[in-house]
Amino acid sequence: MTPERLARIKHILDTRQPDLRVLTDQVHKPRNLSAIIRSCDAFGLANMHVVWPKEGFRAFRKTAGGSYNWVTTHTHPTMVDAVSDLKAQGHKLYAAQLSDRAVDYRDVDYTVPCTVIMGNEVDGVSAGAADEADEHIVIPMMGMVESLNVSAACAIILSEAQRQRKLAGMFENQRLPQDEYDRLFFSWCQP
Amino acid sequence: MTPERLARIKHILDTRQPDLRVLTDQVHKPRNLSAIIRSCDAFGLANMHVVWPKEGFRAFRKTAGGSYNWVTTHTHPTMVDAVSDLKAQGHKLYAAQLSDRAVDYRDVDYTVPCTVIMGNEVDGVSAGAADEADEHIVIPMMGMVESLNVSAACAIILSEAQRQRKLAGMFENQRLPQDEYDRLFFSWCQP
Ligand SMILES: C[S@@+](CC[C@H](N)C(=O)[O-])C[C@H]1O[C@@H](n2cnc3c(N)ncnc32)[C@H](O)[C@@H]1O
Ligand SMILES: C[S@@+](CC[C@H](N)C(=O)[O-])C[C@H]1O[C@@H](n2cnc3c(N)ncnc32)[C@H](O)[C@@H]1O
Repeated sequence: MTPERLARIKHILDTRQPDLRVLTDQVHKPRNLSAIIRSCDAFGLANMHVVWPKEGFRAFRKTAGGSYNWVTTHTHPTMVDAVSDLKAQGHKLYAAQLSDRAVDYRDVDYTVPCTVIMGNEVDGVSAGAADEADEHIVIPMMGMVESLNVSAACAIILSEAQRQRKLAGMFENQRLPQDEYDRLFFSWCQP
Repeated sequence: MTPERLARIKHILDTRQPDLRVLTDQVHKPRNLSAIIRSCDAFGLANMHVVWPKEGFRAFRKTAGGSYNWVTTHTHPTMVDAVSDLKAQGHKLYAAQLSDRAVDYRDVDYTVPCTVIMGNEVDGVSAGAADEADEHIVIPMMGMVESLNVSAACAIILSEAQRQRKLAGMFENQRLPQDEYDRLFFSWCQP
C-alpha cells in the first residue's frame, strides 16, 4: 500500500454519505446495475439496496467489476421489506417514476436522509413502492422515446444530489459512523 | 397516424436543437452507444456523430432500438475528419476528458453551437481530438473508481446542456432548418 493510496482511501471514506442511498426495484440487466453502482461510488454513496428480479441474478458481481468493492450492497427479499427497512431508518423515499404526481428531480431535497428508488427496465417502480414513496421524481425529457436508460437516469439524479450536498457542506466532515468507517478502512486496505 | 401522435411529432421537431451534438470517439459497447443515442433524443438533439472503433460495429443498429429513428447519425472515418467537419460548422468542441486542463462541466456554455466529445471506454478521447478541443470538461467524482460509465457521463452533461438551453429560451422557437424539418417530419410520419 503506497502512502498515496492510503490517503486516497481516507479521503474517500471522509466524504462518504451514509444517509443517501439508491434502491433498485428488480433492475435486471447486469450492465445497468454495474453502471448504477459505479455512479453510487462516484457521487459519494456508501450503500446501495437491491431487490433482485424474480429470475435471480448471478452475473452481477462479475460485471460490476471494481465498483462492487466500494459500495456496500444490501439485498432485500421484496420491495415491501426494503421500503419498510428504509422508512424505519428515517429515510425519505424518492421514486424515479414517470407518473402524474412526479415533480422535477431538482425540486426535492437530497440533503435529508433519503433513498432514490430506480425502477425495472420494463415495468418501472412497482406499484406498492410507488404508493409508499414520499415523492415521485422525473427528469424532464423532450424526445420521442418515453424514458431514459435506468443507469443514465440514476447518474443524473445522483449528480444533482451530490451538487446539493456539496452546497450544504456535507462533504466537509466525516459522516460515516466510526465503526463503519473502521470496518471499511480495514477491508479497503486489504491487498 | 392518430392526431395525438402527429401533434407529438410536431412538438418534438419544434424543439430539436440542430447545433448541439454529441461525437463518440470509438465508443465500442453497443449498449453504451444505444444509451447515448437515447439520451440525445431525450434532451432534444437532432444529430449524433460517430467514429467507429477500428473493429467496426455491426451490432449497433439493432441494440439502439427505437432511438435510432429519432436522431440522425453521421459517421466519420476518423476523428480528424469529424473534428474538422464540426469546426467548419462553427462548433465549439467540448471533450469529456479527465485531464489537467478540464473544467467543471457546468462551467462551459452549451447555448453556443457546440459538440460534446465522449471518449472510448478504455482510452478516453484520442490525443489529437483532445488537443483540438476548445475545452475539456469533467464531472466531479469522489469515489474510488476513476471514471463513470460513458453513457452515464453523457447523460449528465446533456441534462446540463438542456437546462442551459431551456433557461435561454432556445426551445421556444423552431430551430431546425425548414428543409430538415420537412424531411424529418415526412420520415417520422411513415408507418
Ligand atoms: C426504462 S425506464 C422504465 C420505464 C417504464 N416503462 C415506465 O413507464 O415506468 C427504467 C427506470 O429508469 C428510470 N427513468 C428513466 N427515465 C426517467 C426519467 N426521465 N425520469 C426519472 N426516472 C427515469 C425510472 O426509475 C424507470 O423506472
Ligand atoms: C470509462 S471512461 C474512460 C476513462 C479513460 N480510462 C480515461 O482515463 O480517459 C469513458 C469516457 O466517459 C467519459 N467520462 C467518464 N467519466 C467522466 C467524468 N467524470 N467526467 C467527464 N467525462 C467522463 C469520458 O468521455 C471518457 O472518455
